[in-house]
Amino acid sequence: MRVGVLTGGGDVPGLNAAIRAVVKRGEGEHGHSVIGFRNGWRGLADGDVLPLTRQHIRNVLATGGTLLGTARYHPNEADGGIDAVLATLEAERIEALICIGGDGTLHAASKVAEAGVRMVAIPKTIDNDVWGTDRSIGFDTAVTIATEAVDRIHTTAESHNRVMIVEVMGRSAGWIATTAGIAGGAELVLAPEAPFDIDRVVRFLKHRHRAHASFSIIVVAEGAVPAAGTSMEYETQLGRFGEIVAGSVSERLKAEIEQRTGFDTRVTVLGHIQRGGIPTPADRILGSRFGVAAIDAVTRGETGVMTALRGDDVVLVPLADVAGKVKHVPAEMLEVARALA
Amino acid sequence: MRVGVLTGGGDVPGLNAAIRAVVKRGEGEHGHSVIGFRNGWRGLADGDVLPLTRQHIRNVLATGGTLLGTARYHPNEADGGIDAVLATLEAERIEALICIGGDGTLHAASKVAEAGVRMVAIPKTIDNDVWGTDRSIGFDTAVTIATEAVDRIHTTAESHNRVMIVEVMGRSAGWIATTAGIAGGAELVLAPEAPFDIDRVVRFLKHRHRAHASFSIIVVAEGAVPAAGTSMEYETQLGRFGEIVAGSVSERLKAEIEQRTGFDTRVTVLGHIQRGGIPTPADRILGSRFGVAAIDAVTRGETGVMTALRGDDVVLVPLADVAGKVKHVPAEMLEVARALA
Amino acid sequence: MRVGVLTGGGDVPGLNAAIRAVVKRGEGEHGHSVIGFRNGWRGLADGDVLPLTRQHIRNVLATGGTLLGTARYHPNEADGGIDAVLATLEAERIEALICIGGDGTLHAASKVAEAGVRMVAIPKTIDNDVWGTDRSIGFDTAVTIATEAVDRIHTTAESHNRVMIVEVMGRSAGWIATTAGIAGGAELVLAPEAPFDIDRVVRFLKHRHRAHASFSIIVVAEGAVPAAGTSMEYETQLGRFGEIVAGSVSERLKAEIEQRTGFDTRVTVLGHIQRGGIPTPADRILGSRFGVAAIDAVTRGETGVMTALRGDDVVLVPLADVAGKVKHVPAEMLEVARALA
Amino acid sequence: MRVGVLTGGGDVPGLNAAIRAVVKRGEGEHGHSVIGFRNGWRGLADGDVLPLTRQHIRNVLATGGTLLGTARYHPNEADGGIDAVLATLEAERIEALICIGGDGTLHAASKVAEAGVRMVAIPKTIDNDVWGTDRSIGFDTAVTIATEAVDRIHTTAESHNRVMIVEVMGRSAGWIATTAGIAGGAELVLAPEAPFDIDRVVRFLKHRHRAHASFSIIVVAEGAVPAAGTSMEYETQLGRFGEIVAGSVSERLKAEIEQRTGFDTRVTVLGHIQRGGIPTPADRILGSRFGVAAIDAVTRGETGVMTALRGDDVVLVPLADVAGKVKHVPAEMLEVARALA
Repeated sequence: MRVGVLTGGGDVPGLNAAIRAVVKRGEGEHGHSVIGFRNGWRGLADGDVLPLTRQHIRNVLATGGTLLGTARYHPNEADGGIDAVLATLEAERIEALICIGGDGTLHAASKVAEAGVRMVAIPKTIDNDVWGTDRSIGFDTAVTIATEAVDRIHTTAESHNRVMIVEVMGRSAGWIATTAGIAGGAELVLAPEAPFDIDRVVRFLKHRHRAHASFSIIVVAEGAVPAAGTSMEYETQLGRFGEIVAGSVSERLKAEIEQRTGFDTRVTVLGHIQRGGIPTPADRILGSRFGVAAIDAVTRGETGVMTALRGDDVVLVPLADVAGKVKHVPAEMLEVARALA
Repeated sequence: MRVGVLTGGGDVPGLNAAIRAVVKRGEGEHGHSVIGFRNGWRGLADGDVLPLTRQHIRNVLATGGTLLGTARYHPNEADGGIDAVLATLEAERIEALICIGGDGTLHAASKVAEAGVRMVAIPKTIDNDVWGTDRSIGFDTAVTIATEAVDRIHTTAESHNRVMIVEVMGRSAGWIATTAGIAGGAELVLAPEAPFDIDRVVRFLKHRHRAHASFSIIVVAEGAVPAAGTSMEYETQLGRFGEIVAGSVSERLKAEIEQRTGFDTRVTVLGHIQRGGIPTPADRILGSRFGVAAIDAVTRGETGVMTALRGDDVVLVPLADVAGKVKHVPAEMLEVARALA
Repeated sequence: MRVGVLTGGGDVPGLNAAIRAVVKRGEGEHGHSVIGFRNGWRGLADGDVLPLTRQHIRNVLATGGTLLGTARYHPNEADGGIDAVLATLEAERIEALICIGGDGTLHAASKVAEAGVRMVAIPKTIDNDVWGTDRSIGFDTAVTIATEAVDRIHTTAESHNRVMIVEVMGRSAGWIATTAGIAGGAELVLAPEAPFDIDRVVRFLKHRHRAHASFSIIVVAEGAVPAAGTSMEYETQLGRFGEIVAGSVSERLKAEIEQRTGFDTRVTVLGHIQRGGIPTPADRILGSRFGVAAIDAVTRGETGVMTALRGDDVVLVPLADVAGKVKHVPAEMLEVARALA
Repeated sequence: MRVGVLTGGGDVPGLNAAIRAVVKRGEGEHGHSVIGFRNGWRGLADGDVLPLTRQHIRNVLATGGTLLGTARYHPNEADGGIDAVLATLEAERIEALICIGGDGTLHAASKVAEAGVRMVAIPKTIDNDVWGTDRSIGFDTAVTIATEAVDRIHTTAESHNRVMIVEVMGRSAGWIATTAGIAGGAELVLAPEAPFDIDRVVRFLKHRHRAHASFSIIVVAEGAVPAAGTSMEYETQLGRFGEIVAGSVSERLKAEIEQRTGFDTRVTVLGHIQRGGIPTPADRILGSRFGVAAIDAVTRGETGVMTALRGDDVVLVPLADVAGKVKHVPAEMLEVARALA
């Protein structure tokens, strides 16, 4: 059996573990040929193939990035995109496809599956907001990096009345902000799940700095928003690919806080370092388990499903159930972040 | 309300996060007084108290060990132990108790709860084998340390026909061995869940070294055992506190492998470094969530229950369901470890 | 003997190792009393003392920040500053003073020594530009953090024609930029030692992206400047305390590069995370050796000197030789950074 | 010009940085062809060549091990070894040779240079005992790993009267033991430079545990020896390749301490994890600088010299000055380790 594999969307640590698992298990157990497509859906549309062998996956388990490359192209959003994909699959005699990606890729995957292609998806996103799975590939590494940054800022934050803002990723959900905020002992976490009231933020800071502290750390998700009807309002600033412009939220917060409190406020935008480098063990394991589960699933004839972690188990969930939903941080975690400030 | 808290059994990274959460939430939200007991159940039996304030929990979130100390004493196994515990609780006017510990502590906790004490337990063990919860405090840090060790040994294992054995903790379950084996790309994982056949191990090594490799890494849990009826047999060697003597399993394996294959075989026993040092973000978060859940639970009047992680959620499970059971590594993970060797 | 100790200027990892060494050696070997001053020279001027005992220095060896606090106040720059310092020293019967700090503190120290105070200084600065010593406390940790950031950005930099700018500290000297650039394999290092020509930067990027690469990483010191007479000019943007405004250099570079090449250019400003967190072993050792050398020196009656690392040895150099000089990156290292791009 | 390069002896992190620098600088600046020899001197004697190109050195800067492989063979100790080396050099038309290695390789290199080969050596050894250079490649990474292990053991060492022995590498010199001991805050460092008196060790432990502590950490170099005429004596136990058998020193110490004090004593032998994994920035930089210096030197016609770090500078020292000498830990560092216990 010839099985195709691609990685779409932004790269995250742990993708290579998944690709390696698909190849090792596919070849070693099932006798499949595994054909990679370069640069995500773009390579699948263009017929840019890389037949994967044991050689390609040597020493990649502990590396960041994706050995297949990736791109922000989605066939379902481009004219003739799906047709080009189908043409490549036919030309290359691909019998099943494994797509590793986030929101956009999962959506495209479900469209391709509807067009009759045998297809299993693997979720990845440092935002961890894919519905239907406890974890997506890349999240654990991102939290580890963000927490280390908060730790470092903690030990150096000794000047009086200084407010340190650390901006992390998280467009629609505040998973990184909430977890790194709890793990790093931040004083305040601003997540998209709980639109904030700048008046309360300012009151909290003033009270804290007056009462017993000389600094505060705020961890803010790039997608955090002011609550409707409160005294601060802003439009989220978007970049060329629809992503939130790094730092735009923090700079607005900084301006507001400095003006209202007079506290010296500093911004650190973690940016790209959150999505690179050596994957944590948890991300390598998740990638490996999802890769094995996906290749086993297409071999059994499954289609239109996504691998998912549920507690200690790896399961399959219908892509149709996943599409269009965002998995938010549970209220209990938001409360823990608040309670331990 | 006066709430007692203790940590029992071996220490692990993440305990201080839990203690901190109990104190912060207990004081800040509920207005409780939190009374620590030094050195686990021993301090509870002896009345060795440490009233905990904000001061004690400053800067402890990211530290290993336990600020309360711990000991291997269990009141249910000692003459008059339970009575001494009850006497201290009465003398100190403790209305509820939070016990953080592993197997032994959870068992003791259930006995103390049966004696009428309001009691909520929090599971910790680097072995991750507590039944009823996806994770116990300390496991994620241990896996991270063990994986780093396997990574390091990988890059240096270049001499021909050398077999590197890395022994990790795991008495009854092979969670660390299996996860660090997958994450580190080990060639062989030996876990208690799947008793091994030394003949097959030797055949595998001979084949691999003849065919295409110059070294192999075996990750072995201290509690790994040969399958019944196979040609290697041994009694597990136990230390003073009933723990497995570090290195005893590895040295037997090494002797057997060297004799049968002639391959130079080296042993690295990770030992104590697996349970110390800075907790990973995951362990800090787990400790924090469990700590908040436990103090909230005793405040609501819950008793005889344990905090547990189930997927994305923290829940409570009856201690009675947990006792005497071991949570084993799922067959799927063992298969992933095998398939990706 | 009563010995005073203070930390001045920005905090860096390794300060606590030095304080600990002064106290342990001072008490244990020489029988001195060690008196700390809070918040640097400010505390010395104001008489804000913290008598240091074994208790204060427990578990601080591996921590960032400074247990004494610090401030940006210098007595030689304030009206009556030196007099206030002398008054406190007399009131507290301090016979010798150990000052740990960077440029400003070393300058102040030399003024105080000239006023007749027995004084030994210890150099710290993540910029590593103190003249007369191979290393200052804090530098090794900063390089480690900056290198890790470059590593992470490397694995994720896969989009086509993207230029990644990483801005690190280094006002007058490019030690962090050059070392992290070499260690991280950056394509271009911009350091104050070698004013850059934007035309050549642009030509280099265009050639590289046309010829064989899809991305470039530029590590830039905050104090990097364009060469006189070249086509890009800017004034360095300074903050309230005279420090360079984080990101100002990078944003100008980004604008210039994007305009002239059309390549998507992204900026990561490491900022405060460079000076916090757990000190590396090298910084703990340097702090410990400098601390012991300083307390031994004041005990012997030395004054007006600074502890310094020269090769494998710790020596003393006259403060008068240090003042007003900047230690630059050797030409050989700049060439290594260039050659290995 | 055709330049050969090899890595000899045990592998250490940072070798690939040196090889990469030789190739990049050799090709890019000087237009040389760089020819690698596989598995150290063995490959040079056998003519096992690997012509090195840009492709071989991609993404190796941050990796451990050596891409050329290594072996414990030395031509000067083998019959006809030097002749075989000369024959290969002639057959491959190699005009100059760069040898990266420790004691044995440096000795062999000096013999080959005496036979008329243009030769520059680069020192590597985690033991850091090569005379003439402040640092050898691999040392900084080893210290970092050893310190992290001591840190971890510190936080978990809470049981009463327990002595933790951590054994690190260091056959003739105690660089790792002393530096990791200082950085990790060990109570006792045993190094080859200062033969120990077990009576004093025992007195120290008894006093400490009686007076104010519940545990002690001893960092011991594998080559530590008892002082002549003291009450403990042992022969160092050697393995097949003349290396000290891991753990042999620690186990003797443990037995002696347990017998004389009754304190529970535990041994952790770091072993192979000290020499593997990702090189620290310092080791990547040292490898890069030494590689550039070596290829520049052979190009200029230098021979019989070794690259060396002296303070902030890279210099060349005659191999003849290096041979047969061991660089010991300075007395001042041993004293710092003792004073801060």
